[in-house]
Amino acid sequence: MARRLDMQAAGFETAFAELLSLKRESSPEVGETVRGIIADVQARGDQALLELTEKFDGYRPASLRLSADEIDELAAKANPEAVAALARAADRIRAYHALQTPQNERWEDEEGVVLGWRWTPLDAVGLYVPGGLASYPSSVLMNAVPAKVAGVERLVMVVPTPKGEANPLVFAAAKIAGVTEIYRVGGAQAVAALAYGTDSIVPVDKIVGPGNAWVAAAKREVFGQVGIDSIAGPSEILVVADGENNPDWIAADLLSQAEHDPSSQSVLITDDAAFAGRVTASIEAMIGKSPRTKITRAAWDDNSAIILVPSLEEGMPLVNRLAPEHLELAVEDPELLLPLVRHAGAIFLGRYTPEAVGDYVAGPDHVLPTARAARFSSGLSTLDFLKRTSLIACTKEAVRAIGPDAATLADEEGLWAHGESVRRRLEDEPH
Amino acid sequence: MARRLDMQAAGFETAFAELLSLKRESSPEVGETVRGIIADVQARGDQALLELTEKFDGYRPASLRLSADEIDELAAKANPEAVAALARAADRIRAYHALQTPQNERWEDEEGVVLGWRWTPLDAVGLYVPGGLASYPSSVLMNAVPAKVAGVERLVMVVPTPKGEANPLVFAAAKIAGVTEIYRVGGAQAVAALAYGTDSIVPVDKIVGPGNAWVAAAKREVFGQVGIDSIAGPSEILVVADGENNPDWIAADLLSQAEHDPSSQSVLITDDAAFAGRVTASIEAMIGKSPRTKITRAAWDDNSAIILVPSLEEGMPLVNRLAPEHLELAVEDPELLLPLVRHAGAIFLGRYTPEAVGDYVAGPDHVLPTARAARFSSGLSTLDFLKRTSLIACTKEAVRAIGPDAATLADEEGLWAHGESVRRRLEDEPH
Repeated sequence: MARRLDMQAAGFETAFAELLSLKRESSPEVGETVRGIIADVQARGDQALLELTEKFDGYRPASLRLSADEIDELAAKANPEAVAALARAADRIRAYHALQTPQNERWEDEEGVVLGWRWTPLDAVGLYVPGGLASYPSSVLMNAVPAKVAGVERLVMVVPTPKGEANPLVFAAAKIAGVTEIYRVGGAQAVAALAYGTDSIVPVDKIVGPGNAWVAAAKREVFGQVGIDSIAGPSEILVVADGENNPDWIAADLLSQAEHDPSSQSVLITDDAAFAGRVTASIEAMIGKSPRTKITRAAWDDNSAIILVPSLEEGMPLVNRLAPEHLELAVEDPELLLPLVRHAGAIFLGRYTPEAVGDYVAGPDHVLPTARAARFSSGLSTLDFLKRTSLIACTKEAVRAIGPDAATLADEEGLWAHGESVRRRLEDEPH
Repeated sequence: MARRLDMQAAGFETAFAELLSLKRESSPEVGETVRGIIADVQARGDQALLELTEKFDGYRPASLRLSADEIDELAAKANPEAVAALARAADRIRAYHALQTPQNERWEDEEGVVLGWRWTPLDAVGLYVPGGLASYPSSVLMNAVPAKVAGVERLVMVVPTPKGEANPLVFAAAKIAGVTEIYRVGGAQAVAALAYGTDSIVPVDKIVGPGNAWVAAAKREVFGQVGIDSIAGPSEILVVADGENNPDWIAADLLSQAEHDPSSQSVLITDDAAFAGRVTASIEAMIGKSPRTKITRAAWDDNSAIILVPSLEEGMPLVNRLAPEHLELAVEDPELLLPLVRHAGAIFLGRYTPEAVGDYVAGPDHVLPTARAARFSSGLSTLDFLKRTSLIACTKEAVRAIGPDAATLADEEGLWAHGESVRRRLEDEPH
């Protein structure tokens, strides 16, 4: 059973603070091992990749890169209905992310200075895809489609295939998303290869995609050499619901994040104690039907909560303190609560919007900030695969207008040559 | 003397690769010390801050926070001309960053799904300002103004004041930029206080601003608890210039980055060997006049280069491989070269645009990606102080249109409750 909190009960603040500071994830200390693997890949390249793959994945592939025929063959084994659903999902994800593409701008200001910026795509992006259970075809789309929309030309997927086994739908997703190269390698060694390159793998500029503790540690290590996405923690859902909801719907929503991982967290905020009871009963009736009962049970019992509030409006400050990855506003008119939300990765509005549509088909990205990071960061988007260059152009007149202040400030900061570079242009001829 | 490379000479590729991989920065290994300091501040709060300030800054302040009167008193000591220049610079920086403010969007698609996103500012941002020589008032503006433009309400500055000494213009800049709180504390302890809070300092959501190796290491450590900006490396300039430039102007531009730090890098790409010679002569004539001759000399001799290319167009791939922080296109028509640039932090167009105007008064941010990070990242902007929340709203009809694909994919991924949360809405009533 999830913990029960009552905002009006004594000791609520302590109990809520405890919920906020729950240390749900304990990462093993793998830094040393990971640094060793990265150094090995830097030194020995493909040879290291093959040996490490033999060691960790239990077989030695004939080649690291999958040929187009191999990819086609694997993708062809996927359930055709699922492939069709993926293709439709990709269309919706593409359409949403295309609208995120920012504009280039240029203008001339009152002093005659031409200013602006220009967005350009990254040249090459690496996409890490986990093997085994955590290998989600939907995540291939959610990471790869925004990169393609941004205009990234090289999109390089790495995926471990333990004992040579692979999830066909992952390869179907890679084809749909427009991945340009796939390598059968995983772990810290795959991250190292993407960052520094080997004879087989030309290095990329940024690495995205989820992974285990070794992959996460490797991404931290290579950050700077390449860009990385944020480090994703276990999934979370916060449902704000009045008493007029179907308790089975809300129960299923809460369980849908609890089933991800024993470290996941589901929270219900409601102003109706009887409804809270009905949801609890529904969860207990439902949880045994899941093929992932044990995981779901652990997440629900250990990390989750039902919070009773005097009114949903009064509960909204709790929403902002939790800053959830996923927020459902399951009420008749969610627009009344929406302005009160400051921090959330994605908001699902109204009774008919289960969080799961956002995981697969709605269009927005399902890679979202976890562990309260929605206070300061956003989900993955087209912007993550573009970078912005500032543009500045002065004429003779413009530098005369704005230059003297620059020289004054440079002198004040003790930077003589800065000032000199301006003064010369105020005094001398350009040729 | 900077190294000379000729794109058409034998061995060029090796020499250029060596330039690219120059390890200009050697960070001391401070991780252990920094982790100790952070743990101490977490455990003992203000007491730790006071003791560490006494230890590192050589005095024990009566209070950590500066009162409004203290700030006014300090700011009043600044050179009035410089304060006026700063105020005008702030206006220009504000105007540029205001145009970066992104739009909220909402639309309904063909399936009746309402989609969109909403941008909201961070609640609170911490701004690290170094003490001593590296304390640049211009950097206070460049970090604080975008946060204020984004709508951040709490803007908390920390600045060490060794032996109680402070740079008045930094406090004037803080007032101009709209900083809301200032604390006299620096180093890893200041970063820890901003991330975790103490009795005196309420924690923030993101920490920005430059600092030494201890500050950088502390930011890495607290990342996740709060957001951080990118870790800035030593400054760089790349000037692409034809033979028609005034060599003194280009020499001053190259020296203006070399004077920052012995690890800085200045590179000239030109198609005119005689012009390269004139620039070299001008640099040698100029370098002794700088009050920072020793720093400038080290950066120019050890890290810098003049590269002769057969034509400027043919040199542009080298520009993209260098992916410089600052790029000047000092030619008659920079628009001809501009489309060939893919990677640069900021581009300065034409003969009359010295990089230094961008450092102070042009308007774009001077916090820019260094060490080839322009391949995958952008300068600081208003966007760094906002986060985007996805919005999704389905009606009964909309979830019927897109829900079945979500259920198919959830089943395929073994996530039963995900599918169930959709199926219930296709089958049951909402109340």
